[in-house]
Amino acid sequence: MSSDSLLLSGSYPHRDGSPIDWTTAFARRTDLMENVYLRDLLKAALIPGIISFAGGLPASEFFPIEDVKESLGRILQDEPHMALQYGSPEGHVPLREYLITVMARQGVTASLEQTIVVTGSQQALDLIGKVFINPGDVILTERPTYVGALQAWDPYEPRYVTAELDADGMRVDQAAEILKQEPVKFIYLMPNFHNPAGVVLNQDRRQQLVELAVRHGVFIIEDDPYGSLRYEGQDLPLIKSLCDDRVIYTSTFSKTLSPGVRLGWVAAPQPVITRLMQAKQGADLSTSVLTQMLACDMGRRGAIQRHVGQLQAVYTTRRDAMLAALERDFPEEAKWTRPQGGLFLWAWIPGDIDTDQFLPTAMSQARVAYVPGIAFYPRGNQTGGHNCMRLNFSNATPEQIAQGIKRLGDLLKKHLA
Amino acid sequence: MSSDSLLLSGSYPHRDGSPIDWTTAFARRTDLMENVYLRDLLKAALIPGIISFAGGLPASEFFPIEDVKESLGRILQDEPHMALQYGSPEGHVPLREYLITVMARQGVTASLEQTIVVTGSQQALDLIGKVFINPGDVILTERPTYVGALQAWDPYEPRYVTAELDADGMRVDQAAEILKQEPVKFIYLMPNFHNPAGVVLNQDRRQQLVELAVRHGVFIIEDDPYGSLRYEGQDLPLIKSLCDDRVIYTSTFSKTLSPGVRLGWVAAPQPVITRLMQAKQGADLSTSVLTQMLACDMGRRGAIQRHVGQLQAVYTTRRDAMLAALERDFPEEAKWTRPQGGLFLWAWIPGDIDTDQFLPTAMSQARVAYVPGIAFYPRGNQTGGHNCMRLNFSNATPEQIAQGIKRLGDLLKKHLA
Repeated sequence: MSSDSLLLSGSYPHRDGSPIDWTTAFARRTDLMENVYLRDLLKAALIPGIISFAGGLPASEFFPIEDVKESLGRILQDEPHMALQYGSPEGHVPLREYLITVMARQGVTASLEQTIVVTGSQQALDLIGKVFINPGDVILTERPTYVGALQAWDPYEPRYVTAELDADGMRVDQAAEILKQEPVKFIYLMPNFHNPAGVVLNQDRRQQLVELAVRHGVFIIEDDPYGSLRYEGQDLPLIKSLCDDRVIYTSTFSKTLSPGVRLGWVAAPQPVITRLMQAKQGADLSTSVLTQMLACDMGRRGAIQRHVGQLQAVYTTRRDAMLAALERDFPEEAKWTRPQGGLFLWAWIPGDIDTDQFLPTAMSQARVAYVPGIAFYPRGNQTGGHNCMRLNFSNATPEQIAQGIKRLGDLLKKHLA
Repeated sequence: MSSDSLLLSGSYPHRDGSPIDWTTAFARRTDLMENVYLRDLLKAALIPGIISFAGGLPASEFFPIEDVKESLGRILQDEPHMALQYGSPEGHVPLREYLITVMARQGVTASLEQTIVVTGSQQALDLIGKVFINPGDVILTERPTYVGALQAWDPYEPRYVTAELDADGMRVDQAAEILKQEPVKFIYLMPNFHNPAGVVLNQDRRQQLVELAVRHGVFIIEDDPYGSLRYEGQDLPLIKSLCDDRVIYTSTFSKTLSPGVRLGWVAAPQPVITRLMQAKQGADLSTSVLTQMLACDMGRRGAIQRHVGQLQAVYTTRRDAMLAALERDFPEEAKWTRPQGGLFLWAWIPGDIDTDQFLPTAMSQARVAYVPGIAFYPRGNQTGGHNCMRLNFSNATPEQIAQGIKRLGDLLKKHLA
């Protein structure tokens, strides 16, 4: 990207010679939109032989291709005109009915009017930002928190306040103190297999958080992309199942079917869904009916559940490979979380290595990429994470994981020596 | 939708009995987001036996289903892992390369870095709003203008100024006067087969508009969803081909392949594309690679061009059927545009019939739906259109068109008598 140099020079050659001043051309909110961490990581993919623990990609070699072929074949045979036409902004009714049955199995009662399909759960975050956040509104997140939520919301100019994460998820005691002092608009968290930290919010805290939300009259955004990817232990109740009215629940098909279908959904009180639907009409009119019908067909005939079962086995092996490699090859003083599910773990590096500054070295010398911890800290809350990294274990083979962690561990040890 | 009644009552039953105050729950911008015209029209589809001239839907019975099957089959055979994985926010490179060749045939020189794929051109409008519009910024549009652009931009709180449309498109003389007086951020227009009016911006005005944009240092958003759907006459040069640096060009596959693929694109100076890409990451991460590969494969092997040729024949017949029916059955004093392409024409109703107030009568008594003219007038500019309607001719058979226009014409005559 050479836009930075253009911005620095403050001009762009116009055909008649007069310059366009790009420093003033854009809306103010664009100053908040650039994520340098992600931009740098895009370059990582270009380095030959790199092993990337940076992305959050599912293992594409296990995509349920035969089932996708079968379902698409059936849809294009039976209902092609509906599949290829515009859909409604709320989403395809049969898919929403299927989602309602999925959520019901998790203790969530949602009606059609309380359920909307979106173009990946990233769009849910964007639309939630659009309908809730006035400039200066206060959002309470975990620290660290999901970088995609920050990307979605930064343009709406909120102020972030944060409660720390520990091994049992968000420090709800800290959230309670913040709620006494700050006019929080909503609480955002990822209670199951947190991105980036891999931890789970324990049962007591789920109940405490709901009580806080009710007492202070705030909404909870429960972001649950990985809930079905559990490799050990028992499922905990969704926060949405504990308090229907105050919780806006969002999930996705990206990790259980494929990111290529660009499908997520939201369950929320009807007035929220109505606003999200209005915002969605302006944002992209409707989500692809073709991919909605695909997800619906695969869901109904059990193909998604079968695929999740396979992924649980594959990702368990990969998580175990990463945990074993870290134990074997990372510096002795390093620490990491031990996730019971999801795609990520979070590691603390000893000494004075700044993981953001160290990343280019890691990419060029160890040919390994990770996401520096600081990327997951909201503006105004970057009081930690400099010695942390997010490591993804879903998108590399056990052999690559062993190799990559050894190369990274050896390099870290060299720099700590 | 019962959200209105909830808003009126100002409360929503909470599980512990305390109310959620929905009147204050949302961001201020949501006050600008509801489009009552479109909401009412959604209900139209539920009335049995209705003939709808309201939507802008392509004729689904002519979708190129066999070509879609063939291309999807090939993609899922040859490159399924790429098709179902996350894509880059800029879009699939082969599709962007194909789009560059398409635009080159229209005199537009765009590089890969000047081209981004979006989730339908509605997303282009949303992202353009996000990266350009500060609250209070002035946008110059045609009057009437595309309602989807207003839906995309209203949440960013611009102020609209407008130049009238006539049979040769935007009144560029009016635009010139406005540009002397107002700090316009960008000019938005649809030069080819305007939605809603069906008119084309003539060649002289295209050149004049470019000169105005350069002189005043403003951008032009050239929205071109229907350019390839010409039924008579000669193509005029794209505005983008006359002035590369000041023009942000957007188009879509919704009318040439299928709306279900949710694919559009933007060509613009690279600093604009960089900002759009950042905004897109936050909005939905990336567009479906599966549907991008589908469009690319169909485009490369000529299937899109063949389909467009078929649509030109089908829509010519339907346009002619509507023009003949209007001539035969509409009130004598009514007028309408005679579009050389696209999906819509614009009609003026004589007397004191307000087309917005008349719509429920038209739907219940004539069982015909249209979009009232006022829907296409931006906030603060609703100084006309009350006696106008947009009529779509692409999504009904010639027989339905003849029937529907007769029923509507008879009802109008009865009310004018």
